[in-house]
Amino acid sequence: MRKTFSLAGLSFGLPFLALSGCGKADDRPNIIFFLVDDFGWADTQVPFGPEVYPTNARHDTPNFVEMASSGAILTNAYACPLSSPTRTSILTGVNSAHTHVTNPLASLRGADTAYDTPDDSPWATVDSLAGGCLDSPRWAVNGVNPAVPGNPDEVEDAFYGTPYARLLRDAGYFTVHIGKAHWATAGTPGSSPYNMGFVVNVAGGVVEFSKCGYRSENNYGNVKDGRAVPFTPHNLTEYYGTGTHMTEALTREALKALDYPIREKIPFYLFLSQYAVHTPIQDDPRFYQKYLDRGMDEGQARFASMVEGVDVSLGEIRAFLREKGIDRNTVLIVMGDNGGNSENKNKGGILHTQNKPLREGKGSCYEGGTRVPMLVEWPGKVAPGTLINTPVICEDLFPTLLHLGGVRNPETVQEVEGQDLYALLTDGSRLASRQSFGDRREAYGFVIPESVSGIDPDRYIVSHYPHAWKPYVLDDIDFLSSIRSGRWKLVYRMRTRDLELYDLSEDIGEERNVAGDHPDIVSRLAGALSDRLRRFEAPMPTVRGTGETVPMPDEVLNGTK
Amino acid sequence: MRKTFSLAGLSFGLPFLALSGCGKADDRPNIIFFLVDDFGWADTQVPFGPEVYPTNARHDTPNFVEMASSGAILTNAYACPLSSPTRTSILTGVNSAHTHVTNPLASLRGADTAYDTPDDSPWATVDSLAGGCLDSPRWAVNGVNPAVPGNPDEVEDAFYGTPYARLLRDAGYFTVHIGKAHWATAGTPGSSPYNMGFVVNVAGGVVEFSKCGYRSENNYGNVKDGRAVPFTPHNLTEYYGTGTHMTEALTREALKALDYPIREKIPFYLFLSQYAVHTPIQDDPRFYQKYLDRGMDEGQARFASMVEGVDVSLGEIRAFLREKGIDRNTVLIVMGDNGGNSENKNKGGILHTQNKPLREGKGSCYEGGTRVPMLVEWPGKVAPGTLINTPVICEDLFPTLLHLGGVRNPETVQEVEGQDLYALLTDGSRLASRQSFGDRREAYGFVIPESVSGIDPDRYIVSHYPHAWKPYVLDDIDFLSSIRSGRWKLVYRMRTRDLELYDLSEDIGEERNVAGDHPDIVSRLAGALSDRLRRFEAPMPTVRGTGETVPMPDEVLNGTK
Repeated sequence: MRKTFSLAGLSFGLPFLALSGCGKADDRPNIIFFLVDDFGWADTQVPFGPEVYPTNARHDTPNFVEMASSGAILTNAYACPLSSPTRTSILTGVNSAHTHVTNPLASLRGADTAYDTPDDSPWATVDSLAGGCLDSPRWAVNGVNPAVPGNPDEVEDAFYGTPYARLLRDAGYFTVHIGKAHWATAGTPGSSPYNMGFVVNVAGGVVEFSKCGYRSENNYGNVKDGRAVPFTPHNLTEYYGTGTHMTEALTREALKALDYPIREKIPFYLFLSQYAVHTPIQDDPRFYQKYLDRGMDEGQARFASMVEGVDVSLGEIRAFLREKGIDRNTVLIVMGDNGGNSENKNKGGILHTQNKPLREGKGSCYEGGTRVPMLVEWPGKVAPGTLINTPVICEDLFPTLLHLGGVRNPETVQEVEGQDLYALLTDGSRLASRQSFGDRREAYGFVIPESVSGIDPDRYIVSHYPHAWKPYVLDDIDFLSSIRSGRWKLVYRMRTRDLELYDLSEDIGEERNVAGDHPDIVSRLAGALSDRLRRFEAPMPTVRGTGETVPMPDEVLNGTK
Repeated sequence: MRKTFSLAGLSFGLPFLALSGCGKADDRPNIIFFLVDDFGWADTQVPFGPEVYPTNARHDTPNFVEMASSGAILTNAYACPLSSPTRTSILTGVNSAHTHVTNPLASLRGADTAYDTPDDSPWATVDSLAGGCLDSPRWAVNGVNPAVPGNPDEVEDAFYGTPYARLLRDAGYFTVHIGKAHWATAGTPGSSPYNMGFVVNVAGGVVEFSKCGYRSENNYGNVKDGRAVPFTPHNLTEYYGTGTHMTEALTREALKALDYPIREKIPFYLFLSQYAVHTPIQDDPRFYQKYLDRGMDEGQARFASMVEGVDVSLGEIRAFLREKGIDRNTVLIVMGDNGGNSENKNKGGILHTQNKPLREGKGSCYEGGTRVPMLVEWPGKVAPGTLINTPVICEDLFPTLLHLGGVRNPETVQEVEGQDLYALLTDGSRLASRQSFGDRREAYGFVIPESVSGIDPDRYIVSHYPHAWKPYVLDDIDFLSSIRSGRWKLVYRMRTRDLELYDLSEDIGEERNVAGDHPDIVSRLAGALSDRLRRFEAPMPTVRGTGETVPMPDEVLNGTK
């Protein structure tokens, strides 16, 4: 995995200058990537579906609405089902089935993790399961090794990749990392954002956030019941005991870090990676009571207050850009890192309904687990108020961010699989905006042709989760793999070897399996998924008892296994 | 304390350009300040005294020796008796008796600290003490508040000061903070180096280092006996479990952080603040056995290995500058933050002899507690191999660093008391180097005139420690205040109201109190010290029982109290 590849085939629509050092002659745009943890597709008032759903009315998110009206709404944006897979795919431009980072990373190098479902795990011995029990495969438990040139550090069970942030930094960008990383384990170079290409890091690294929490009153976990959590967010001591919610603290740190590059006229890249709205579900006291007053149960109200905190953070970022007079030369990208968590009882409401109409949530290869909110704003370049319906996936961020930063043909140790979205976002959005739509459903149906966007609208979108997520069985989450092409989505349930087909154009909720009606489509998608999993040498579970690897979808279909 | 002052009276010997932003036209020098914790005056092979002492032969420090032969040796450099006072004085340019940061800071805002010797403290009720017991005064327990413009944060018991690092950064310097800070408590803005003016921070903040230690095998305290220390050094997860000693990890982080400004041709300021050679006294396994083989006891060998680790760090920094071709345009300053710790039994040897011939060590206003190693190297500007004997003190770093960075007349909320050493280091060192010295003692006696250096060689050097340091009585450390002028040093022992006079030119070890022979000198120095303590509104202890403030030295002398 140490060969050197270049990003061939990227189209560069504009003559970006690869200037560096002398900031004043530099007109490259600033870039902000605002990533929200566990952010559900229906968590904001911005509708990402063909219609506005009741779920869109739950949380007050005026800043997301305002950004959506000023930028493009990507209605078919995908992440991986869980955090580390998405984050490492963004970082390297490689699908998680290929990085082999298919599960959340533990804190320490080589440490066993409960997610690994070892053979002797009590919850993996449920004999009543149709199809029997599976065991998790070996995967890249140490995350990404940034493959620093000349660095002899060898890391086992890691994906070697050149991070996009290093390429941006080496091109002169002032790269800032604020918040959650979750790319690699402690004891390996990747655990430090400084090794991933960031000039500045605040609060990123190895953090056991669920034990730390959002409360400055608790020093974000640094003093918890009289003792400290081993992995707390760094560089935030100034907020200890001050009543500053974590979401607000990170926002303030982000804006502070931009002071230097703005003053020095150096183009910056800000990765503001909010820990919200991940567990623990704790109220943001600025907004909590309002949602209780609306009749939400306490869990729902807590979660709602967390979402609104993120909305306010986004609003502060956008206001800051205007105040500094750099809003027109700044690309702002908002995204979720996986589907909304629909399995957490502390969120209140009814489990697995939070992402409706999408099926399931975080952890699942059904749409609720992988389809995420995504907005892009770039005044004058991205047409305002546009729907972009072309499917995109997290690994696309790698070539896209580099294109935005004017980085041409970078050398990388990995072969990048993500597709450059630059033309889609610029030329594509402008084409879409020129269409006169009678209604939202019509706009939702408009397809930006590949000739304009460089992206085949029927491209394959692969999701892969060869593990069990929780210490109990979750049939619609554990051991799934899926592939989408255009309207069609194939789900492979590895436990039972079932292949399900859904027509997303009519059934976005994946309620009606139409595999029996379209054997040709099933066959095509099963073949495409199998091809990729084989090429990626993707981690595949093994069958308890036989020890055999689960068959590929095409083998199931052909009855060869 | 919120008035705005400017640094009037600074002399600027060279026409520095205050360019910023466009790095390529920028010829301002890079600046590295290498601060070593608890670094004793006699810990290296570089002799800072009029002769070479046996103490100079203990530790192998070839890199310090090499630097000393390439730069200037400041033989009369002073810090405060303890860490936080020195660090906050450097940061603000104000004497610690005036900042009121006279003791080491605790971790949490407003927290009681054992150093405060409360009235009900068991060790403060020792009735046998001559002069009776004293109680510690109120002091600036929250350290420095960086007084960010527009920041409404009010911090009680803090000194408001504009940090030099912010002025350097605002002038365009890429300011890097690596290692120990110890400027302010958690819960206040000053606890984050980002608020003190640093663009990048690694490992700095609020750290309880004595509990953390140097060992990556112990994750630098992040996992200690199965639980974490609440305040561990940040951003070092990559070294966990890798066998990388803290001193080496910080060096690597420092060099890594310089990659961006060097590549982008932005002048940088690096504050590399080694946690070594502070407690815990743990062996650096790279060097430990060698010292055992020389017959040292285990404590001595452990400490020796820590010193050599720092020497190697310095060597790596200097090699890096040469390798990058920037050694000639980089000013390198090395200093200790207080006298060598002579009170720690774990260091081995005999207590209070480690800084010989100086009397006492860390914590004390006797020379062993305040006189520290200091070297400055700047090829072509600072004459090589020169002795600079003019007394300098830590608060001088503030105007000096700004002068080196070409910052003219900066606005500060505090009135800066430190003196600009620029002319002393450049013109002064060149003058000194032109003298032909017969021997070291003669060179040691050469006085650089004020007309060349801008510094009166008889200037007053004030040290002030109005506290008890440990939970047991240390007569030569607790409740002392001192002032030096030229050859004369007056020590005020507040517990007994004794005034001692030493002639440092003949008695560097402060063994012969000559107060009785020179009442005029005693009177002049007592007056000068009293004037300063009054003007500074310096914290003064109170007498147990009466509750009265300890008299000023001139009041003792005049019998008015």
